[in-house]
Amino acid sequence: MSENRENKTPQQAAENAPGARDHAAQAEQLDAADPLGSAVRDRFVLDDTVYLDGNSLGALPRAVPGRMAEVISREWGELRIRSWDESGWWTAPERVGDKIAPLIGASPGRVVVGDSTSINVFKAVVGGIRMAGKGCTEILVDATTFPTDGYIARSAARMTGLAVRPVEPTRIADEVTERTALALVNHVDYRTGELNDLPGITNALHSAGALAVWDLCHSAGALPVGVERYNVDLAVGCTYKYLNGGPGSPAYLYVRESLQERFDSPLPGWNSHADPFGMTSDYAAAEGIVRGRVGTPDILSLLALEAALDAWDGVAVEDVRTKSLALTDLFLDCVAAYAPPGRVRSITPYDHGRRGSQVSLECSGAAEVMAELIRRGVIGDFRQPDVLRFGFTPLYTSFADAERAARVLGEVLRALPEEDAAPGAGG
Amino acid sequence: MSENRENKTPQQAAENAPGARDHAAQAEQLDAADPLGSAVRDRFVLDDTVYLDGNSLGALPRAVPGRMAEVISREWGELRIRSWDESGWWTAPERVGDKIAPLIGASPGRVVVGDSTSINVFKAVVGGIRMAGKGCTEILVDATTFPTDGYIARSAARMTGLAVRPVEPTRIADEVTERTALALVNHVDYRTGELNDLPGITNALHSAGALAVWDLCHSAGALPVGVERYNVDLAVGCTYKYLNGGPGSPAYLYVRESLQERFDSPLPGWNSHADPFGMTSDYAAAEGIVRGRVGTPDILSLLALEAALDAWDGVAVEDVRTKSLALTDLFLDCVAAYAPPGRVRSITPYDHGRRGSQVSLECSGAAEVMAELIRRGVIGDFRQPDVLRFGFTPLYTSFADAERAARVLGEVLRALPEEDAAPGAGG
Repeated sequence: MSENRENKTPQQAAENAPGARDHAAQAEQLDAADPLGSAVRDRFVLDDTVYLDGNSLGALPRAVPGRMAEVISREWGELRIRSWDESGWWTAPERVGDKIAPLIGASPGRVVVGDSTSINVFKAVVGGIRMAGKGCTEILVDATTFPTDGYIARSAARMTGLAVRPVEPTRIADEVTERTALALVNHVDYRTGELNDLPGITNALHSAGALAVWDLCHSAGALPVGVERYNVDLAVGCTYKYLNGGPGSPAYLYVRESLQERFDSPLPGWNSHADPFGMTSDYAAAEGIVRGRVGTPDILSLLALEAALDAWDGVAVEDVRTKSLALTDLFLDCVAAYAPPGRVRSITPYDHGRRGSQVSLECSGAAEVMAELIRRGVIGDFRQPDVLRFGFTPLYTSFADAERAARVLGEVLRALPEEDAAPGAGG
Repeated sequence: MSENRENKTPQQAAENAPGARDHAAQAEQLDAADPLGSAVRDRFVLDDTVYLDGNSLGALPRAVPGRMAEVISREWGELRIRSWDESGWWTAPERVGDKIAPLIGASPGRVVVGDSTSINVFKAVVGGIRMAGKGCTEILVDATTFPTDGYIARSAARMTGLAVRPVEPTRIADEVTERTALALVNHVDYRTGELNDLPGITNALHSAGALAVWDLCHSAGALPVGVERYNVDLAVGCTYKYLNGGPGSPAYLYVRESLQERFDSPLPGWNSHADPFGMTSDYAAAEGIVRGRVGTPDILSLLALEAALDAWDGVAVEDVRTKSLALTDLFLDCVAAYAPPGRVRSITPYDHGRRGSQVSLECSGAAEVMAELIRRGVIGDFRQPDVLRFGFTPLYTSFADAERAARVLGEVLRALPEEDAAPGAGG
């Protein structure tokens, strides 16, 4: 990309940044001892950049290009219509769902893949409202949610005659009432990387007779979710972040087994019919998670995702969590060591119990700082008005990556002192 | 596939079927004079079968495998997150919409691609209901519709407090009242191949103050639709039939320009926001057709579709219509000549003005007959209880294909006399 790219040896690095020798050596040791080390990392197509934007778009798994060539040329090109049966296209939404299920702590038959996250939020919120008691008059929505959840939840409430009340996740236990049908909460805050208390909030909601609907976009694939262990009622998530399914790959819907029979979808397409090829004009919902389907599944994207999920073979999500915390620990330590004092401030909690798998740093002139980081081969992203986001995907992010990212950040911050940096809000 | 496959010369064929020599020679002449002949046909991956199921899943355009390899390896694998801007991912839903627009008679900025047909039916029906006058109490739904439209329309009506009344398309002009918000109608009947009177029905609806919402799944790409010429209000369609976008490729939504400002989507995801990266908690709909978007677009499928649409370069949809009618004419003539008398009955109208681009034949034992046709290399499909469907895609179906399909059908029907054929309902 540019000659500015940072490819220094740890020794060279140590000449520039305070404490760099120690941290670089520490990173090397951690990588050497990493059970998810190069064997898993080699399942991805990587280059000499440090890619810390896997919380937005995961890197390409090596299995995908070959599999997609086969899907396109053989399954579509040669078998054509026969592939709906012979290549297992028709059942892919459930089959890929069963492949995601263990990553979020679900049994088979609880997860179905298809449509975007926004569409699945609509299914989950309307479906949840329809399961709630007659006296319910409102739903709660995480006040810090990724915006689409809020927009869709308001549409769902409008169409079912309920009110929407935005509530900070930490306040849900206090704010839920017997009139609350459900709360829609983000497991990890997309902006700050804060991990919300899924077991505690779910329990509090249940104590008040409300359902817990979780958005797992920023947690699934980065940490154990435990949807069944903690009795989550409904959940949705995307698959293009830590699950590496590709740009805009289809999202998923989880419905707790005991609620599936009562799940009454607002989007009852022919794929969720008990007898889809009966072509009857009367709708009868299929049994089980199939009723979360809508229209014809998007096969190319679904099968790319399926191939991408092979990168998880033999990987325990608990090990991913351990590495994730070690990566973000190291990054935060390195930032503290390398960045000019007071120049950045982490808005991601230091407490492991409250941290997801990203680090967000408040930084004046963040837009310009991120642009320069990217020019120097460290890919994170910028969120308005002044946040630098760095996502850590344990399957392919190394400790050396974390150290190098912090080191380059230190260099950029020294090259762009605060007084020179433009306000981030302009970016 | 099997040694039964039919690869006879016209001369050999003539020995077996009455009138075959004439029809085979006629097919040869028609192919030689076809302006959409082999140059366009060569844009598709074909084999020695006769593929007449393009009304269910279009054949693979040759441009797709190479383009997808590039999208996956270069745009996703190398550029990764940068591709949202640099590779034009973000604007693909509108860009691909503009590529579909001329095929349905729309100007740029009227069509957006994304989500399944069922999801787009929901957007169109709820959006249409919200545009209708306060006094409206019902919507009409094509009584012969592909089932998913009916299921989704009933959900849309349930969520907006309206009633649903199924009406035969030919009866809509008589049944529409001042209380009708809209009618949802299939342009071509998926089962019979009958072309409904889009200009007349649209006019009748408008005269009563109702909106016309058309499902173009079985017409777009096979005949000129003229959505703007005939003042269609809203329309949806899939892209995996005559548009050859691939299995489950994303559907599209058309909204008439003068209605776009009033289009109030029930699925207001972050992609339809006026400032999607502002990440504000308040929703403000984007201007124009962008407000038909919902969540993150499904890039792999969308770009496969975009590449597939290159097969239309230099092709006028009027020429496609001319060839389509000539193909189905020839097929019907050949079936009349080759099939044992009274053994099959076309439920597709002979009148050109009422015929889409498929021929549906009622036939006892249809399931078994279709299975045997497929074994002999003629790929159509079976619809319960007793319908053989043959779709003709003028971009790649030749007149020789049409003649051969009818000839093989005649052979199969003679090999499976009516008394031996199992009832189709079992298939």
